[in-house]
Amino acid sequence: MIIVLKPEATQADIAHISGKLKEKGLAVHISKGSERTIIGAIGDDRLLAELPLAIFPGVESVHKILQPFKLVSREFKKENTIIRFPNGVTIGGEEIQVMAGPCAVESDEQLLFVAERVKESGAKILRGGAFKPRTSPYTFQGLGETGLKHLSKAREKTGLLVITELMDPRDLDMVEEHTDIIQIGARNMQNFRLLSDVGRARKPVLLKRGLSATIKEFLMAAEYIASQGNQDIILCERGIRTFETMTRNTLDLNAVPVLKSLTHLPILVDPSHGTGRWDLVIPMAKAGIAAGADALMIEVHNNPEEAFSDGEESLTPENFERLMRECRKVASAVDRFIA
Amino acid sequence: MIIVLKPEATQADIAHISGKLKEKGLAVHISKGSERTIIGAIGDDRLLAELPLAIFPGVESVHKILQPFKLVSREFKKENTIIRFPNGVTIGGEEIQVMAGPCAVESDEQLLFVAERVKESGAKILRGGAFKPRTSPYTFQGLGETGLKHLSKAREKTGLLVITELMDPRDLDMVEEHTDIIQIGARNMQNFRLLSDVGRARKPVLLKRGLSATIKEFLMAAEYIASQGNQDIILCERGIRTFETMTRNTLDLNAVPVLKSLTHLPILVDPSHGTGRWDLVIPMAKAGIAAGADALMIEVHNNPEEAFSDGEESLTPENFERLMRECRKVASAVDRFIA
Amino acid sequence: MIIVLKPEATQADIAHISGKLKEKGLAVHISKGSERTIIGAIGDDRLLAELPLAIFPGVESVHKILQPFKLVSREFKKENTIIRFPNGVTIGGEEIQVMAGPCAVESDEQLLFVAERVKESGAKILRGGAFKPRTSPYTFQGLGETGLKHLSKAREKTGLLVITELMDPRDLDMVEEHTDIIQIGARNMQNFRLLSDVGRARKPVLLKRGLSATIKEFLMAAEYIASQGNQDIILCERGIRTFETMTRNTLDLNAVPVLKSLTHLPILVDPSHGTGRWDLVIPMAKAGIAAGADALMIEVHNNPEEAFSDGEESLTPENFERLMRECRKVASAVDRFIA
Amino acid sequence: MIIVLKPEATQADIAHISGKLKEKGLAVHISKGSERTIIGAIGDDRLLAELPLAIFPGVESVHKILQPFKLVSREFKKENTIIRFPNGVTIGGEEIQVMAGPCAVESDEQLLFVAERVKESGAKILRGGAFKPRTSPYTFQGLGETGLKHLSKAREKTGLLVITELMDPRDLDMVEEHTDIIQIGARNMQNFRLLSDVGRARKPVLLKRGLSATIKEFLMAAEYIASQGNQDIILCERGIRTFETMTRNTLDLNAVPVLKSLTHLPILVDPSHGTGRWDLVIPMAKAGIAAGADALMIEVHNNPEEAFSDGEESLTPENFERLMRECRKVASAVDRFIA
Repeated sequence: MIIVLKPEATQADIAHISGKLKEKGLAVHISKGSERTIIGAIGDDRLLAELPLAIFPGVESVHKILQPFKLVSREFKKENTIIRFPNGVTIGGEEIQVMAGPCAVESDEQLLFVAERVKESGAKILRGGAFKPRTSPYTFQGLGETGLKHLSKAREKTGLLVITELMDPRDLDMVEEHTDIIQIGARNMQNFRLLSDVGRARKPVLLKRGLSATIKEFLMAAEYIASQGNQDIILCERGIRTFETMTRNTLDLNAVPVLKSLTHLPILVDPSHGTGRWDLVIPMAKAGIAAGADALMIEVHNNPEEAFSDGEESLTPENFERLMRECRKVASAVDRFIA
Repeated sequence: MIIVLKPEATQADIAHISGKLKEKGLAVHISKGSERTIIGAIGDDRLLAELPLAIFPGVESVHKILQPFKLVSREFKKENTIIRFPNGVTIGGEEIQVMAGPCAVESDEQLLFVAERVKESGAKILRGGAFKPRTSPYTFQGLGETGLKHLSKAREKTGLLVITELMDPRDLDMVEEHTDIIQIGARNMQNFRLLSDVGRARKPVLLKRGLSATIKEFLMAAEYIASQGNQDIILCERGIRTFETMTRNTLDLNAVPVLKSLTHLPILVDPSHGTGRWDLVIPMAKAGIAAGADALMIEVHNNPEEAFSDGEESLTPENFERLMRECRKVASAVDRFIA
Repeated sequence: MIIVLKPEATQADIAHISGKLKEKGLAVHISKGSERTIIGAIGDDRLLAELPLAIFPGVESVHKILQPFKLVSREFKKENTIIRFPNGVTIGGEEIQVMAGPCAVESDEQLLFVAERVKESGAKILRGGAFKPRTSPYTFQGLGETGLKHLSKAREKTGLLVITELMDPRDLDMVEEHTDIIQIGARNMQNFRLLSDVGRARKPVLLKRGLSATIKEFLMAAEYIASQGNQDIILCERGIRTFETMTRNTLDLNAVPVLKSLTHLPILVDPSHGTGRWDLVIPMAKAGIAAGADALMIEVHNNPEEAFSDGEESLTPENFERLMRECRKVASAVDRFIA
Repeated sequence: MIIVLKPEATQADIAHISGKLKEKGLAVHISKGSERTIIGAIGDDRLLAELPLAIFPGVESVHKILQPFKLVSREFKKENTIIRFPNGVTIGGEEIQVMAGPCAVESDEQLLFVAERVKESGAKILRGGAFKPRTSPYTFQGLGETGLKHLSKAREKTGLLVITELMDPRDLDMVEEHTDIIQIGARNMQNFRLLSDVGRARKPVLLKRGLSATIKEFLMAAEYIASQGNQDIILCERGIRTFETMTRNTLDLNAVPVLKSLTHLPILVDPSHGTGRWDLVIPMAKAGIAAGADALMIEVHNNPEEAFSDGEESLTPENFERLMRECRKVASAVDRFIA
């Protein structure tokens, strides 16, 4: 950590700061410049995370040197993490995986119908919400345990892997029983209790980026999970909040190469929530692959007009088939492949 | 709801949309203009919340007429809600309340020392976190139940009311036992399960605005609580996320008069988290009162340099005394008062 | 336009609003619903652009039906605009054009060296700033007219087309003499005088999106140019401002398909300014093409370490060669091509 | 400047960077820590403004120590700047000045009517636009020179000082002849040519903050003006762009105390543009004063319903009278006064 002092800082200020740094176990290095004196705190920045150096007398500004995340950083682990499922499916390798299915599980038949259609088009993972975080208390909140059972049954019948969202720590055991990947939604990205809990689960976790989370905060949320022992984490870019109102969110594809440079974890792009408009899903899915994504998540509904939620952003099975066809070509152009 | 059709929309499109609206119980009103045909759906917009009309064939755009929140709206209840505590303290009346105390409860002695000092300066409510949502898993997470007990004891000794944060639904009973007001933090503003749970609690709730929550989303989160029966809700503006980096957040005082026009609930301003800099707390506290706030929440620490968290934004007891003195004058200039 | 009335609006309010609308030449349509009365103003919304209906007595909210832009809209002109240069180069057709060159023209030799290298790699248009908008008055402001002459000379020697920025209306004649495309920078997107002036120029205009311009404002800026007669406009997405600090801007690729749906004008993506980091330029250029861009603009410098400006985001000629090679494959995957 | 190296940086990298720094005239200080080597460049950061150190081999990150603005900084000049007009009016002293008037000059009579009313209420400066930056080319663009003459005449008749906007450098002489303060609008905050031009003018300049300008950029724009010799600059906070849609902009009052800590220039708050809603103007004007503003700018129109522009945010003369009455009380509560 680098501490820049005000021009008027005194010797006593310097001694006070140095003393505090040494107390925390860091070495201290002082250099007096023509305009400012600078104190270098040599050692692990993280030991100082809670020290409010900015308000110490004489301090003008504080600059951190090390990133606050560790286990998830590429500095900690150079090679890409590849998540491997018992049936041979991998996420983070050369193959790009596509997770597809309805926003919400609505019924046994609906889910199975969509599952079979997305499987035919090449998806290997079925998505579907049993617990739905909805902004209004007056709208459909999901089928709950019944929905989870429908997912299990669809998995059994189709051989697809299953991903579903966990909203409440009290549901963890139940969700873990029925799913292959546990999804943490954008609104829970900083629900630190929930993160710690899934950090102790035995299933991989898909962590969605919060609506206005910086990339650093996103990686710190992943660090919460990893710090509890579960390092099978997929990071999901799903759109951030900006001033633009023509799309529900602004899908931030810059995050893909930025994350690739900072972390070894696989990156998934969700153009359905990321844009909120079905007509933008195909071009943005292709762009996501070109930017380097390892996986996609796509909402598909048998009849979007009748969807219980997010109908605006759902593809029909026919459009999903087209998406897969077009994405295969782009994947190939960036030396990857989709089944 | 108003549905604007594309120039090329057909009679069949109009019939299809009208049919669906009638099916949902709304009356339909069609007007053909020179450039566009417009369909008015007459009745309660909220019945259409889940209908993705934007993707119906022939639809160009959809405009909602009614706000999606109801119980918390000023349309539903004209007069201001005043929350009354057994000891006579009120929030939302002519008196402006100040909640003050350390970010985190650190020890019995620390809490009591600060409690006595803020009481002397005129605060009637003591704040202090026993469970701390921290962005890093490697920093202090709060004293938990021990912290709650310290709060209870400080309440007993000083007669101050107590407010503390609830992060996990599994802690609700324990927190409710030790606190007078349950705080829901900004990161949990859309933790819908937690909102529903405190909606069934018997204590008032302070709901903090999410870091990038719109005012509509903020009121919908309050509606979640209210819809479960608990209508003693205080709305807390605590800074939003913008592009500016000189402050931790951008305290949005516009929200105060905007909320006052839309809801009957009392509004609190938190300039400590709202700015993240102790040197901005006093001017922004005064500005908050001038803008119409009903209450303030201020972080005060016996020794900010040694604070376990948020030392940068904490006032010393001396500066808090100054804040109270200066705020009293501004309160009086807007025909309110601080004890 | 749709005007929604408050529940308490009176007959007199309705008559007052209706009268004003009729005065402006619109037909009026009133429908009384169970919760609200709604007034439809039938005719051209644009006639009402200056009428502050929101503050008329009894008005709750106002909803515009038509987009405020006209000449640049796809509704006005269905087929894509293709800009054709005398030497046969086109922008907006099947071929994707790449504009490349240094941020600033630094010298005759530097410009010619870079021009020849980017030409070898397949670029057909040379970029280079002679007038530089710099955030500090103490940094290099461009070579001015000398820089323009270097551009003319490089054009002559290489046969490349040339694009350069116009900052001041007083320089228009001089810039127009030396360039094939006039660039309007992001900071001047709402410099309405400058827009009107280039709207009367005889050369195509590249209009950069402002740092926090909505897509609607971006199209209105293009409308300013078009309304003066010059409809050869290229829209440039170059990154917007968000809360993220790991990139200089957030390149908003969603804008590409959104703009394609709203306007007939060609769209260019600038991943150099859009990200501010050279290591992100290649993945984001590929993503831009996959999203549907008609052209790219790429900063290339013979020695980025020594660049007078924007060295951080400039590619070396070697990396530009790689960009072209990789982009050709993605272009082909979306049924387009790069020379 | 502090340059942090990657763990894998070599001796050659260090020598290369050090050489470049010394070439620029800075002293170099190297400290090797346990995790990173750090190079301190001792001397004036501004000499390095154009050097892209971030892309030098071995560099991980670069931290600037000094702010890039100088003449406008409080470090350069400790005491507050007070702007003094020939008639004795001051801006930046104990008295809070209020500038009021219509958004646009519409006619001789209208302007004079409003001027007399705002003068009666205590305003000493009349605002009114003769050149209007409008987002649509199809709306009223201002009366131009005729408008300027109306302003001159109103000044003569009422004794009020006058402020009006300059949009085009070609109009500078004409505007300067008719006004006491030259206004630079938010959309021109980074029109660097215009800034340089008014930097050579003999009249004080009101500089409006750009819609998404950081505070640093805002001060750099002021530095452009100051660097040309004109240091009579008033900084105007007029709302920034955020995700919130209930207000036209988000008036950022945090900017007031932040600017006060960084610069000696006087600060004005514009709650009319800052919120875009007349019903929010009075509370936010009071909040601006409580936050420390030196001046206010308020739109007042004889008949807002008929205003040629910005009617939504204009106060009637009656409401302006109320604003002045209420603001006087708040000014007094913060030890200032309004005439």
